[in-house]
Amino acid sequence: MKVVLLAGGTGGAKLAHGFAGVCDPADLAVVLNVADDTERHGLLVSPDVDTVLYTLAGLVDPAQGWGVAGDTFTALGMLERLGEETWFRIGDADLALHVRRQHLLRQGLSLTDAVADIATALGVGARLLPATDDPVRTRVLTDDGELDFQAYFVRNRQVDEVRGLRFDGVEAARPTRAVLQALRAAELVVIGPSNPLVSIGPILAIPGMREAVVASGARRIGVSGIVAGQAIRGPADRMLGSLGHEVSARGVALLYSGLVDTFVIDQADAELAPSIGELGMEVAVLPTVMRSDADRAALAEALVALAEATDTRGRMLGR
Amino acid sequence: MKVVLLAGGTGGAKLAHGFAGVCDPADLAVVLNVADDTERHGLLVSPDVDTVLYTLAGLVDPAQGWGVAGDTFTALGMLERLGEETWFRIGDADLALHVRRQHLLRQGLSLTDAVADIATALGVGARLLPATDDPVRTRVLTDDGELDFQAYFVRNRQVDEVRGLRFDGVEAARPTRAVLQALRAAELVVIGPSNPLVSIGPILAIPGMREAVVASGARRIGVSGIVAGQAIRGPADRMLGSLGHEVSARGVALLYSGLVDTFVIDQADAELAPSIGELGMEVAVLPTVMRSDADRAALAEALVALAEATDTRGRMLGR
Repeated sequence: MKVVLLAGGTGGAKLAHGFAGVCDPADLAVVLNVADDTERHGLLVSPDVDTVLYTLAGLVDPAQGWGVAGDTFTALGMLERLGEETWFRIGDADLALHVRRQHLLRQGLSLTDAVADIATALGVGARLLPATDDPVRTRVLTDDGELDFQAYFVRNRQVDEVRGLRFDGVEAARPTRAVLQALRAAELVVIGPSNPLVSIGPILAIPGMREAVVASGARRIGVSGIVAGQAIRGPADRMLGSLGHEVSARGVALLYSGLVDTFVIDQADAELAPSIGELGMEVAVLPTVMRSDADRAALAEALVALAEATDTRGRMLGR
Repeated sequence: MKVVLLAGGTGGAKLAHGFAGVCDPADLAVVLNVADDTERHGLLVSPDVDTVLYTLAGLVDPAQGWGVAGDTFTALGMLERLGEETWFRIGDADLALHVRRQHLLRQGLSLTDAVADIATALGVGARLLPATDDPVRTRVLTDDGELDFQAYFVRNRQVDEVRGLRFDGVEAARPTRAVLQALRAAELVVIGPSNPLVSIGPILAIPGMREAVVASGARRIGVSGIVAGQAIRGPADRMLGSLGHEVSARGVALLYSGLVDTFVIDQADAELAPSIGELGMEVAVLPTVMRSDADRAALAEALVALAEATDTRGRMLGR
């Protein structure tokens, strides 16, 4: 089954890893958020892309869920000594990746091609596709003004109440040809359990992306990143609340209304199924919390099974 | 005494270190060869500048004479894995310096200003002045064609017979304003015991540089990097030979003829003094081989004393 996964860096990376173990790598494309990209030390840093890259390459630091396991921090010490801001903590191997990507970009490669080059070098078979090659940057409106996303997320440790979000550059951005091709070929499109506002949101905000997802003809399944009213990781729950959304799986489902035909909620949220069903989507209740590699594979398998079943049922119903 | 030292990366760095211990840092300017600069991983690498920088900052790896003591090589391993050529072995702290410098250059700083920023951050008081801010690159003509200097020096480990040297871009290059000011203010100009052909040569080949040295009014002392017919380090001896120069301190003196008024040779070469004197320069015999920090300081002190003595004698003779 040809799968396209829309993903940010945390839950999305875990589910991507699950699919990578279940699907033929050639059948898996991960469409990645690039709106939390930033420039550090003159180098493009693409946190969501890199987290998925390191996770699929088996290099990720398992405790942190990002960065390279066992990385050293010699360069960061020198960068600090030389006057660079170092609150965004880049390890030496991670720095090397940024140096390599910047080198490829300077040689004229698109971000898509640079990421593909790096993914291949790291033995990642799945296609890792930046949602766009155009610059899009999430700006976070707080009571102290507008912040660069990483200034909010890493430097300020998400303490600011989020009053608004803006995806700078998104109006001029376009999905890449590779993303559009993957969506056209897809049999299953999954919106991963990433932050719906700042990981999935900027992907879907790219003009033409929503339409391409809907037009794909694939089964479209959303997975809630909110379980029992809380984000598994990160500030999605507080952010939903401060921006006036319902802080629940149903709140996420509302954001994907009209986009997915099936919405997956965790067993902990089973009682929300009827009210989500009323939004015009089918609801599936599955174990969605991925604590182990086995959990990731099980969720990916269940999603594939769900798509196959829905598909069969769809055909039976003459859809 | 206001001292300007023309230096490459090896002997020049040691003598710079000697002067830094002897002079008021504000009175020391080191004019640095940039013709063996290269681009690695999309970053400018400036080996002679960096060696002098690390030496004066007390960071240099003492065994190698270049690079940062105790550096790690995590990034290099990742760069290799990602497909970058890694025969030029950059440690993690060293990479950080290149990243920082490139960041400053991209912000619009000149090389001179970027190096000054880094030197200050590392607590180096002496002025480290790239000979030029314009790109000059040494190309080495070998039997296998023309090589980038670092390809000859590092990748090929200087095994190629050097048939010719070309300083690409030198015709359009100019000494920086900072270099010209330092030379005008100098009371002593020393040509360090660096490779006369590829370290000192490209500095002097910059149009206007020789004239500025001669016009400075300072005492001008050259120090032979060839002792007993051999280079202390590096391929200067073989290079002199293959390019048709005399492989001796006198061969070096010939290259500086008309430029220095005094030439310093090592005690091992005392018998060459009369023949060098015939070239129209005074000859001083000193211990020039710098094995220890004390040796470096002693040579610097002896050069200052020589300049003071020569100066007095000069005045006495009505010069």
